[in-house]
Amino acid sequence: MKLSGSVKYSSVSRGLSAVIAAVATWNLAATATAAAIDLEGFSGSGAAAEMQLEQRFDADLSAADLRVWMQQMASAPNHVGSAHDKANADFQLAKFREWGWDAAIETFSVLYPTPREVSVELLAPTHFKARLSEPPIEGDSTSTQTKDELPPYNVYGADGDVTAELVYVNQGMPDDYKELERLGVNVKGRIVLTRYGGGWRGLKPKLAYEHGAVGCLIYSDPKDDGFGQGDTYPKGGFRPRDAVQRGSVQDLTLYSGDPLTPGVGATPGAKRLALKDAKTLLKIPVLPISYADAEPLLAALGGRVAPQSWRGGLPLSYHIGPGPAQVHMKILSDWNQKPIFDVVAKIKGSEEPDRWIIRGNHHDGWVFGAMDPLSGQVALMAEAKSIGKLLKQGWRPRRTLVYTSWDGEEPGLLGSTEWAEQHASELKAKAVMYVNSDTNGRGFISAEGSHAVQHFLSEVARDVNDPETGASVLRRWLAERRVSSFEGVAQPDSAAYGNASVVGDLQLGALGSGSDYTPFLQHLGVNSVNLGFQGEGQYGVYHSAYDSFDHYRRFVDPTFEYGVTLAKVAGRVVLRASQADLIPVREGDFAASVAGYNEELHKLAESMRSKSREFGKLLEEESYKLTMDPDFPLAAPARLADVPYLNFASLDNAVARLEQSAKAFDKEYARLSATSDKASSGERERVNATLAVLEQNLMDSRGLPGREWYQHMIYAPGAHTGYGVKTLPGIREAIEERRWDEANQYIGVVARALNNYSARMDRAIAAP
Amino acid sequence: MKLSGSVKYSSVSRGLSAVIAAVATWNLAATATAAAIDLEGFSGSGAAAEMQLEQRFDADLSAADLRVWMQQMASAPNHVGSAHDKANADFQLAKFREWGWDAAIETFSVLYPTPREVSVELLAPTHFKARLSEPPIEGDSTSTQTKDELPPYNVYGADGDVTAELVYVNQGMPDDYKELERLGVNVKGRIVLTRYGGGWRGLKPKLAYEHGAVGCLIYSDPKDDGFGQGDTYPKGGFRPRDAVQRGSVQDLTLYSGDPLTPGVGATPGAKRLALKDAKTLLKIPVLPISYADAEPLLAALGGRVAPQSWRGGLPLSYHIGPGPAQVHMKILSDWNQKPIFDVVAKIKGSEEPDRWIIRGNHHDGWVFGAMDPLSGQVALMAEAKSIGKLLKQGWRPRRTLVYTSWDGEEPGLLGSTEWAEQHASELKAKAVMYVNSDTNGRGFISAEGSHAVQHFLSEVARDVNDPETGASVLRRWLAERRVSSFEGVAQPDSAAYGNASVVGDLQLGALGSGSDYTPFLQHLGVNSVNLGFQGEGQYGVYHSAYDSFDHYRRFVDPTFEYGVTLAKVAGRVVLRASQADLIPVREGDFAASVAGYNEELHKLAESMRSKSREFGKLLEEESYKLTMDPDFPLAAPARLADVPYLNFASLDNAVARLEQSAKAFDKEYARLSATSDKASSGERERVNATLAVLEQNLMDSRGLPGREWYQHMIYAPGAHTGYGVKTLPGIREAIEERRWDEANQYIGVVARALNNYSARMDRAIAAP
Repeated sequence: MKLSGSVKYSSVSRGLSAVIAAVATWNLAATATAAAIDLEGFSGSGAAAEMQLEQRFDADLSAADLRVWMQQMASAPNHVGSAHDKANADFQLAKFREWGWDAAIETFSVLYPTPREVSVELLAPTHFKARLSEPPIEGDSTSTQTKDELPPYNVYGADGDVTAELVYVNQGMPDDYKELERLGVNVKGRIVLTRYGGGWRGLKPKLAYEHGAVGCLIYSDPKDDGFGQGDTYPKGGFRPRDAVQRGSVQDLTLYSGDPLTPGVGATPGAKRLALKDAKTLLKIPVLPISYADAEPLLAALGGRVAPQSWRGGLPLSYHIGPGPAQVHMKILSDWNQKPIFDVVAKIKGSEEPDRWIIRGNHHDGWVFGAMDPLSGQVALMAEAKSIGKLLKQGWRPRRTLVYTSWDGEEPGLLGSTEWAEQHASELKAKAVMYVNSDTNGRGFISAEGSHAVQHFLSEVARDVNDPETGASVLRRWLAERRVSSFEGVAQPDSAAYGNASVVGDLQLGALGSGSDYTPFLQHLGVNSVNLGFQGEGQYGVYHSAYDSFDHYRRFVDPTFEYGVTLAKVAGRVVLRASQADLIPVREGDFAASVAGYNEELHKLAESMRSKSREFGKLLEEESYKLTMDPDFPLAAPARLADVPYLNFASLDNAVARLEQSAKAFDKEYARLSATSDKASSGERERVNATLAVLEQNLMDSRGLPGREWYQHMIYAPGAHTGYGVKTLPGIREAIEERRWDEANQYIGVVARALNNYSARMDRAIAAP
Repeated sequence: MKLSGSVKYSSVSRGLSAVIAAVATWNLAATATAAAIDLEGFSGSGAAAEMQLEQRFDADLSAADLRVWMQQMASAPNHVGSAHDKANADFQLAKFREWGWDAAIETFSVLYPTPREVSVELLAPTHFKARLSEPPIEGDSTSTQTKDELPPYNVYGADGDVTAELVYVNQGMPDDYKELERLGVNVKGRIVLTRYGGGWRGLKPKLAYEHGAVGCLIYSDPKDDGFGQGDTYPKGGFRPRDAVQRGSVQDLTLYSGDPLTPGVGATPGAKRLALKDAKTLLKIPVLPISYADAEPLLAALGGRVAPQSWRGGLPLSYHIGPGPAQVHMKILSDWNQKPIFDVVAKIKGSEEPDRWIIRGNHHDGWVFGAMDPLSGQVALMAEAKSIGKLLKQGWRPRRTLVYTSWDGEEPGLLGSTEWAEQHASELKAKAVMYVNSDTNGRGFISAEGSHAVQHFLSEVARDVNDPETGASVLRRWLAERRVSSFEGVAQPDSAAYGNASVVGDLQLGALGSGSDYTPFLQHLGVNSVNLGFQGEGQYGVYHSAYDSFDHYRRFVDPTFEYGVTLAKVAGRVVLRASQADLIPVREGDFAASVAGYNEELHKLAESMRSKSREFGKLLEEESYKLTMDPDFPLAAPARLADVPYLNFASLDNAVARLEQSAKAFDKEYARLSATSDKASSGERERVNATLAVLEQNLMDSRGLPGREWYQHMIYAPGAHTGYGVKTLPGIREAIEERRWDEANQYIGVVARALNNYSARMDRAIAAP
């Protein structure tokens, strides 16, 4: 569902030197052998057995399988409610069973509006009727199936029939509205035209509504994923002029899943909200459009020229309006419930059947969904097939494996959320880890997750080789980080990454939202990770009808080798989490990450404090007034209140305790994992019993301010970023939004959660 | 000639809040009164007299005059050799005489090739013939005079008739060729297509030639000064699709002026180089083209997609080629000499007739030249008229005033350079200061110059009010600096600015090249300044036929009030430099600036040293190889040799001495300027005699490496920037280019110059 950056450098795309053949001879796989003596959670003999198991697992992964499955599953539109969506669920069910898994389909009934009538028309100063559809493209075999698709739309927008002046509001994010205020432009009673980017799409119509707009259009600017990035489809892989980015605008910052059944599974008998009471439904009509449809609208705008950073790649001078452009937009939908089909397959653990390692990906797409989600889905299937073969050879997992294929992820993580809500108690008792994937293509590993598993994932990345270079996936990731740092490319925001306690480890991104890990991590407190490869594909067709098998095989991962590589990585994560003597963690990494986030919060408050003062001085000196051009009136920004000093002490103390507890825990963990003697098996069990539920100590049942569904106190999607993560969100967002009482309150809440976490670790290793 | 940035913020254009009327009442002019007690170089009574004089001077400045003169002088093409160029010289001569000046026209004969035949044609894969001309635009009354214009061209490019594959090389600067090498593309035997920007235009064909190209096209990308900046002419002021940026490509990094007479005045009898020996003439044909003409060429290119930062604003995916685009270009010129007409007007000083204050602007344009150069020229004329009136009322300047209007600046500072070379001995003996202007428009003061006059110019900016805000020009400049710093806008490169020893002073830019101060400052060692206002005009028609009176009055300075403001500023600089008891300087500012530059050089070498090491490590680790995408081969950058430690001691000692000498000098200067008693008049004269020639101590007759014409050891245009300044250029460029022996050598040369400068100051204040 979420689109990760497909181009990581701002500079030229990278490539191997002409002597690519030489690469294969680099002797880089040596580390994989050495790894046998260092596998987190395994004793020496356990590690050796695990390495053998993984070799057998790898041997049955086949790029040809992935290709065939993707072509089959992407052969027709497979959105929620489509015939092919159901067929894909049945296809997977049959496969899982064929491979020896105990599989079933679990069905929920969810609200899923589909458009019956949509139109967008420019009425003045000229007339233009938007196409709002994606024509067939030569060489793309499925693009002719236009009759089975839904028209491009944003699911969970309101119905409406409005005519109003148009205003261009850039990406429609909070800073854009601040700039509009300075420019003296308001959107009240108007239709806003926004461009994709800058934050999650659902925030665009939501903020537009909150500012009084009566409708919202969202277009894909060619600078962002069209000709501004490279050749457009079918010559290259970037967005062609008529392609539209569909997508959900459900307010998932409040909760994900069926809008009518927050907190409970959407079973036939579940109690449902009335439509009017569903807080995640939007209040105004919203439609996504192509840049071909946006260009005449932008050209018809008058008023001020847009600020430099608001301008896109169309060959015109971007104006803000309002007007003279007058737009009429209409959306009429069927507000029905539709069934969704989750495929759930299990292999019972031989020693610890009530500890589950869950692996998931979704199977519904917006149209054909080759990249999103089938590229990840076919990797998951390859893992399941290979594990099935091990099973047939007599192997049994130590802990229970649960492989899942979710439906309804695109409209709002429906399948995963309803399943997680339906089985909440069982999952809280049994789920040790959730391993997610979604899109996947050529390039570099992208790994996000709970920071206690950072070193574990780093070991996996060390032990799998990259198909293009022959070097380990880890080494390639580190090279990318070092080169981009050396070349001055902006580094990832430290607020969204963990601190590695080991130099040379993978640095794990913190989880926000945008795929199916959200209900597991942020609603239930299940330790989660999200995996994929990215950075080298030409992928500008996100959520359009051109995200097809033909596009994928030409521009994303032609050999499907990165699909196999993802299967190797995710499969190892699952197998090691299942087989390890001790569930793999390094609590020092978690403690170091939280300490880093805490330090950032101190700095954030301090920098807001000094900025506010400096800004006040600028206003006193009339510096803004003095720099203004009378031809382009621009009000000075609003004065900011002083930033008080916050009561950080309880959090500082909790972090200090966490660091000490983690250190002691890791020490005992190392002692226990070095041996497999029977004498200490009780101690190991006590540690495992703790680790299976440790993450749940980070939950607070009151949830985050204004959104009680989100209960994780360390990671959440930002209320003003949507998909983008906020770490220590209760505090961070309160500071950012200048709600000081709330900040002080959540400092206490977070401190308590961390203290619980530390206490639980302490108990696990205390002398009995 | 040089275009200064017309938009300073990357953010939105600034504007006054709606309550603009309130601004006029701000009581900000108060400082002007206070200034009577603080005027550098004046005693208390002298300062009072000067303030009165300036009030009388201001009273006769008239915006209506400026408007009439500009309309008249911009009414027909006025390039070198045109009838109207001569007419404008005659017109000014008559005016100067009418105003009471002792004026004459001084003529030189310079090489000035003009095109007889130009063509650019795309031969394959499609056919397209470039228009290469600028059609009339509605509402622009002079744009119909196409028959009197020269076709758009780059003067001093070679003749040629070449057909070759096209390659897009971005801005054609050194880094672009490094990137091309990594991409495996070379330009040998090919025609390069470059876009304007990134460095001086003349470097583009020069570097193309050095890399083996046989021809060069330079186009104006709409992102840079067309619709990417705002509405295009005539709706707004930015570059329309057919507008072309003409300009000189003479290699002025070697020397400016007539290519055939380096170092001497181009009088009829001067010894001239043969064409083939003139080093500043280019070796390959080059033509400037519009974006309308560039688009089909770019669209016809294949090969790799250009790196992100190379892409412009045209609606296509930018490719590098080479080919399949095949281009034919032809230029055939008349290689004649043409006369140029410098107008020189004098008023003899009553007390120190052999100390000259020189004021200059040029009068030749590329076509009509309203903004460039007439906007500055009409301000200069207003000053001359007002001074003429003072003269008629019986006033006489203390020192001699020389007002000049140069011809032939556009092709390469011809008029100023030939005059400076012709009168070199006299100027070295008499010229105290050269005050230049060129383009001018609404906005903020831009002041560059020798750093000893930084405080002097700051006082002038303090004493002139900005017409839009009523605040002082200084206060507005400071507000702009503070706001842009607060908002995180990139601040000016400290290597190109002086250090102010007084908080709240104007920070003076260091002088590179691009206008007529170059021969005075960098060839003769005359203390120089360059003045203008900028930042609020919509000026995207630089060096095109649309730089017209109609464009100027609509989009640059409609009321001509900024022209009057420039006259107030430049007039004050001239009058104070003429009337002060002590020639106005503050040597502490110069010393602090040089100390800052020296510190930067240390840091530069240190940072290159650590970068080289870090880079070596990346190569050893194969990090570049590992990050490359095999679909887009990219060679690793070349390994860099280690950076040795340099012998900075002599420079460090010279800077320390300079700081001490300047401190002592400023102390004595303050003592002498506080009094006007007869007893110390001899001491004052000794200081003035020193100040009149002090700057010449910074010259070294051997010049800079490979360019002996440039003899100033502190300021020069960069060999690889063209117009952009390099401070301490002999050392800085040697370090940047990794010529370590040369760096050590020039550390000694610069140290000697600074020691001479200090010694001269010491002698001026030593007990007799």
